[in-house]
Amino acid sequence: MSSHPDQAAIRAAAHRIAPYIRRTPLLRLAGGDLGLPQDIVLKLELLQASGSFKPRGAFNRMLSRELPQAGVIAASGGNHGAAVAYAARALGVRAEIFVPEITGPAKRARIEAYGARLVVGGEAYDAARQASEARAAETGALQVHAYDQPEVLAGQGTVAMELQADAPGLTHVLVATGGGGLIGGMAAWYAGSGVGVVSVEPEGCPTLATALREGRPVPAPVGGLAADSLGARQVGALMFAVARDHVAKAVLVPDAAIRAAQRLLWEAARLVAEPGGATALAALLCGAWVPPAGAQVGVLVCGGNCDPGSVAG
Amino acid sequence: MSSHPDQAAIRAAAHRIAPYIRRTPLLRLAGGDLGLPQDIVLKLELLQASGSFKPRGAFNRMLSRELPQAGVIAASGGNHGAAVAYAARALGVRAEIFVPEITGPAKRARIEAYGARLVVGGEAYDAARQASEARAAETGALQVHAYDQPEVLAGQGTVAMELQADAPGLTHVLVATGGGGLIGGMAAWYAGSGVGVVSVEPEGCPTLATALREGRPVPAPVGGLAADSLGARQVGALMFAVARDHVAKAVLVPDAAIRAAQRLLWEAARLVAEPGGATALAALLCGAWVPPAGAQVGVLVCGGNCDPGSVAG
Repeated sequence: MSSHPDQAAIRAAAHRIAPYIRRTPLLRLAGGDLGLPQDIVLKLELLQASGSFKPRGAFNRMLSRELPQAGVIAASGGNHGAAVAYAARALGVRAEIFVPEITGPAKRARIEAYGARLVVGGEAYDAARQASEARAAETGALQVHAYDQPEVLAGQGTVAMELQADAPGLTHVLVATGGGGLIGGMAAWYAGSGVGVVSVEPEGCPTLATALREGRPVPAPVGGLAADSLGARQVGALMFAVARDHVAKAVLVPDAAIRAAQRLLWEAARLVAEPGGATALAALLCGAWVPPAGAQVGVLVCGGNCDPGSVAG
Repeated sequence: MSSHPDQAAIRAAAHRIAPYIRRTPLLRLAGGDLGLPQDIVLKLELLQASGSFKPRGAFNRMLSRELPQAGVIAASGGNHGAAVAYAARALGVRAEIFVPEITGPAKRARIEAYGARLVVGGEAYDAARQASEARAAETGALQVHAYDQPEVLAGQGTVAMELQADAPGLTHVLVATGGGGLIGGMAAWYAGSGVGVVSVEPEGCPTLATALREGRPVPAPVGGLAADSLGARQVGALMFAVARDHVAKAVLVPDAAIRAAQRLLWEAARLVAEPGGATALAALLCGAWVPPAGAQVGVLVCGGNCDPGSVAG
């Protein structure tokens, strides 16, 4: 039995979560407005409820299981925690969210605003994950993993299902990778379609590039501008099984290109993307990935949970 | 002969400007995410090229006329100027843009970044308009009016054409009014459709509410938070002829509701709207306009040219 999702599982997830999530729109931008030789299609997943794609997987996990009296528990760099808190409020259950110290004030405030109990500790995501697992063993709360559960992958895969329906002509899709739940779900949807799913990671958090080189998920450094959303230390086992076969390429971008992509999204389209949300576009700006002639390129803008003033200038 | 546009003129405008403007997307938001009793549909016109709806009218005017050697000239609170500068660059002609002193640094910088000559002077839009007309008489440049030309109204009307195609079930559409080119064009499109077009203005700039009360365009105060985008002093004659018959209602909102709408758009949907761009939503938040039972409400978010940090907190 395969534990990674197929299109049927992703369709089922889409049906399950539809009452709770937003169908995020596309925006087509002219290359001339971006200083790029080709037009691109942005999927505006930063406009999703809670400010990132994460509620898709969180709702799918929570709607697929009995929810215990103790509620749900999650560890997160911030976006997954906000999503679980949002979903818990919508479904009327308690949530405890563990975040590391690098998680910024905007993300912490959002988690608490949704009514969850916030626990801050540890240097990066991995420490928060260990603390949350110990706590779950005590309380019996349902763990909602940030990326490495089949229901989470299937939920995130609904982004690709929507993108293919709304932009059927794309030849390539650029997606940022942290723990890999998003790109794992999306690559599972696009598997066999001929659409090239390209992974983009910051040089400071090269989880998938390292795993593909080593042939298995292994720890990678966690640092740089996007560490609070892409700093997972290593990709999940479930996503890796998908990525090995169905991710066309994994490239790395410097923090300067991520910052430039944030500025450009603001200047050209009045969009506020957090560093992780701008990472996929950064690969086009710095040339880490160069589209082949005739490519029709989709770019996922996956999150906007930052200080809005941080994207200008 | 009627000088205000009909659907045929708006369709022709849409065809003319299509290569140059963005088809802006919709975002459906659950009432629960907004603290409102009903869901709403946002038209994200703040994602338009140059950061507001204004290029639609500017391109339609410029593509309908011979462009003289002296290029184009416009007066603006900022958004129209940015749009004319953007359009002039795209069409390869010179642009001179007159703005008043209240126009903020973000809008000034944008006009200059598009390569136009910027002239700052006068307290509000009306003074800049007079200066631009005097200058046009000297140079022979084509005047592109911010709202009171038939091609401008027809261009802005394409917003409604798109909205009706993408959200055919709407019963009401809320639109902010300044000089009235946008709502005039949109009301011309929706005329006779049964869709109620509702005008929303800041209490500080009540141009249309005053004109409707007086039975003709008359000067109104210019002040408050949104004066740099909605502070036109009086509505145009062309739009007034449309509005008298085809605007269902004209309501006023306080600056506090505009600020609350800016904050809510950021908190709930990661959208950065300038004060004028958030004014239509403000009417729902403060109850200046209450939807009748069963209403399907569309809200135009018409501009995002502000300091992004200004929308938080």
